[in-house]
Amino acid sequence: MLPAVLLAQGNELTTGQTVDTNSNWIAGQLFDHGIEVLRVVTVPDDLDQLVEVLTDAAGRAPIVISTGGLGPTRDDLTAQAVARALGRPLALHADAMEQVETRYRSMGRVMPEINRKQAILPQGCTVLENRWGTAPGFSVEVAGTHMYFLPGVPREMRKLMTHGVLPHLRDTFALQTPRRRIVRVIGLGESNIETRLSGLEIPGMQIGFRTKMPENQVKLRFEASVPEADIANAVEQVRARIGWRAFGVDTGDLSEVVGHALAERQQTVALAESCTAGRLAAWLGETPGASRYLIEGVVVYADAAKTRTCGVSEEMIVAHGSVSEPVARQLAEGIRQRAETTWGVGITGIAGPGGATPDKPVGTVHIAVAGPQGTLHRRIYLPGDRKRVQALSSAAALAMLFRAVAHPRS
Amino acid sequence: MLPAVLLAQGNELTTGQTVDTNSNWIAGQLFDHGIEVLRVVTVPDDLDQLVEVLTDAAGRAPIVISTGGLGPTRDDLTAQAVARALGRPLALHADAMEQVETRYRSMGRVMPEINRKQAILPQGCTVLENRWGTAPGFSVEVAGTHMYFLPGVPREMRKLMTHGVLPHLRDTFALQTPRRRIVRVIGLGESNIETRLSGLEIPGMQIGFRTKMPENQVKLRFEASVPEADIANAVEQVRARIGWRAFGVDTGDLSEVVGHALAERQQTVALAESCTAGRLAAWLGETPGASRYLIEGVVVYADAAKTRTCGVSEEMIVAHGSVSEPVARQLAEGIRQRAETTWGVGITGIAGPGGATPDKPVGTVHIAVAGPQGTLHRRIYLPGDRKRVQALSSAAALAMLFRAVAHPRS
Repeated sequence: MLPAVLLAQGNELTTGQTVDTNSNWIAGQLFDHGIEVLRVVTVPDDLDQLVEVLTDAAGRAPIVISTGGLGPTRDDLTAQAVARALGRPLALHADAMEQVETRYRSMGRVMPEINRKQAILPQGCTVLENRWGTAPGFSVEVAGTHMYFLPGVPREMRKLMTHGVLPHLRDTFALQTPRRRIVRVIGLGESNIETRLSGLEIPGMQIGFRTKMPENQVKLRFEASVPEADIANAVEQVRARIGWRAFGVDTGDLSEVVGHALAERQQTVALAESCTAGRLAAWLGETPGASRYLIEGVVVYADAAKTRTCGVSEEMIVAHGSVSEPVARQLAEGIRQRAETTWGVGITGIAGPGGATPDKPVGTVHIAVAGPQGTLHRRIYLPGDRKRVQALSSAAALAMLFRAVAHPRS
Repeated sequence: MLPAVLLAQGNELTTGQTVDTNSNWIAGQLFDHGIEVLRVVTVPDDLDQLVEVLTDAAGRAPIVISTGGLGPTRDDLTAQAVARALGRPLALHADAMEQVETRYRSMGRVMPEINRKQAILPQGCTVLENRWGTAPGFSVEVAGTHMYFLPGVPREMRKLMTHGVLPHLRDTFALQTPRRRIVRVIGLGESNIETRLSGLEIPGMQIGFRTKMPENQVKLRFEASVPEADIANAVEQVRARIGWRAFGVDTGDLSEVVGHALAERQQTVALAESCTAGRLAAWLGETPGASRYLIEGVVVYADAAKTRTCGVSEEMIVAHGSVSEPVARQLAEGIRQRAETTWGVGITGIAGPGGATPDKPVGTVHIAVAGPQGTLHRRIYLPGDRKRVQALSSAAALAMLFRAVAHPRS
C-alpha cells in the first residue's frame, strides 16, 4: 500500500478542547483508496514544532496531508512553517487573494485587512480553491512528496479533500475511485452477520465490518476489474444472506428508510412511548418531510397518561404491571385508533437505574406494533445504562415497524 | 509548563474506523494539571513504527502516556515494543497474572490461555491495576522519563488515569490537584458572557471558555493559594454577573438541572411538541427518575393532532397558521390542563428544509410555557439545518421552563 502521513495542528487539539475528527475521516478516505496511514502527528500552534514535524513527514512518505493553521490570526502558522521547513519563501498569491476577496464579497462584506494573510503562501505552491470558507488550501511538491494543507473546519476540509485532494491523488498515483457499497443492518451482531456470509466468495470483493450503534454495517469493496452488473449481483447475494435486517444499501439510517417506506405506501404511524420518552418520535422526526407520515406521538410515562391517552385499562395495569405485553399491545392499538393511522407502536419498559422488580430486571422492554393485519409483540432484554436501553429499545421498535411495513412475509 | 507526549496505537485509528477520543481526554486532564502536550502520535499496529515512536517520545518529554495495544491478540504489540525500545526484556509478572486471573474468576469464567500474554511485561515495570477490564496497565521509568501504558478501551483508560496515573504524576512532579469549577450557561454566546465578566479580576483565578452545544461553559481555574471560601465567593460573583442563564456549577446538563428543580418543588410538567418531534421529552427523559415530574408528552405534528390532543381551535390554526403565538400558547395550556401538571410547554416551528413561507422562514419557532401564574411566550429565529433547529429550539424551551420554575422574578 502507498504510505501517507497526516498532520493535525491546533492548541484546541493538544489541550483537550476539541476531538480531532478530521484525521480519522481522512484516514478512512485514504484507506478506501488503498493508501495506508503510517502515522498521525498532532502538534500545538508552535512554529518550531510545526517545522520539525513537517520536515520529518516530508522524508517519510510520498503523501502528507495537514489540517488546521490556515486562518488569519497570529496562531495560524502553517504557511510560515512550510516556508521554513521546505525553504520556500512566502509571497502574496494573486489567485488566493482573489478567492478570499470573492468569498467576502459573496457574503456582502468587505474583506478585513487581517484576512490578507490567508493569501500569503509559500512560493511555487498550488492554491486549492475553497468555495466553502475563507481559507484557501494549498499543495506543494518536494522531491516526490505531495503535501496538502487544508483548513481545520471539518466541513471545509471534507469539501477540499473530495473536490481537490482525492482527484489529484487519483491522477498522480493512478489510483482507482474506490467502488464500495455499504449494507446497513439492524438487530444482528457482527459475528452473526459473519456467520450468515460465511462461504460467500465473490471474486474481486472484500468484506469489512463496522459497528455504528445501533446498526452494524457491512462494507463491500470491489476491485476495478469487477463490472457494475456483478457488483449489483454481489450486493443482492449479501442482502439475501442477511435477510430483511439488511434494511438498506448506501441509504440513510433506519428512521429515514422507514420514513421512505411509509411515504411510498402513503401510510402513516403514531407512537405511544413510555420508557423511551419520545426518543423514537424524535428520531423519526429528524428526516425532512416526516410530518407526512408521523401523525402523532405520545410520551405516556405516568399510568394515568397511558389510560387517558391510549385507553389502557387500569385493571390491566394492576393485573400485569405497566411493563407487560398486554399494556404494550393496548398502547399500540390505542394510539393507532386515536390518531387514525395505518400503524401504531407501543413501547413500555424499565430503562433504569430504578424501577426493577425480581421478575422484571432493568432493560426489560415490551414492544408492540399494531397494523391492518393485527398486532405483533416482542419482549426483549437490553444491556447497559439508561440511555443505552432507551436507544436500543427505540431501534428495536423501529426495526419491528420496518419489518411489518416492508417485509411482512419475512 | 511541564511537557508530555501522547501515543495512540491501533489499525482502527489509522484506517478511519475509530475516532481517537482517548488522547483528547488525556490532554484535557493533563492541561488541568499544568502539563502541556507537545505532540500526539498515532501509529498502526506495527512493531517497527511503535519502537521508533517510543524511542523518540522517551527522549522528548519527561511524561509519555500511551494507549492501546495491551490486549491478548497478535496485533497487541505494546509490551514487545517497549522491551525493544528500552532494552527491557519481557518477563511474566506474577501481579499482573494474578490480576487477569482474578478478573476472569469474578466473571465466573476460567482465563483463556491466550490472556497469559497480558501478564508478560517488560522487566522492572510497575503494574497498574485495572479493576475495570482484563488488560493490566504498566509504567516504566527511564532516565527521568515516566512512561505509562494504558488500555485503549476508553472506560478502562479513564479509570486507570484517574486512579493510577494522575495521582502518580501529582506525587512525582509535585503538581496540585486542579481546583476548577465549571459554570454552565444556556442561551448566551461566548462573547456575550465575556462582556458580562469583563473587568472581573479575582487573584489566582483564570477564566476559560468552552462551547458544548447547546451550552457554553465557563471554566474557572484556581491556584493552590486561593482558600476554599474565596473560591465559593468567586463562583458566586461569576454567577451573579451572568444571571439566571448560569444554570449550574459542576452540575449535570440543563435537563437534569430542570428535573431536579421540578422534583425539589414537587412540581410536574407536560409537553406538546410539534417541530421538535419529541426531542425535548426524550432529553428530559434521560435523567433517572424523570417519571416523577415528566407526566406526559405529545408530539402533535398534524394539525388534527394539535386540535384533538391539546384543544387547539381549528379557527385559530386557519387564522394564524400552526406556527404562531396563539397556537404555541394553546399547546402549552392545553397539555397542562390535559395532564393536570404544574407546567405545560408548547413548541411549534419550522424545522425545515421545507415548510417556509415568506413571513415565516425556516428556523421560526414559537415557544410557550404555561404555569400557575399564566403563560409566557417567545418567538425565536434559529440558524442551521433541521437537526440543529430541533436541538436549539428544545434547548430554548427548556431554558424558558428553567427560568419560570427556578427564577420567576429574574
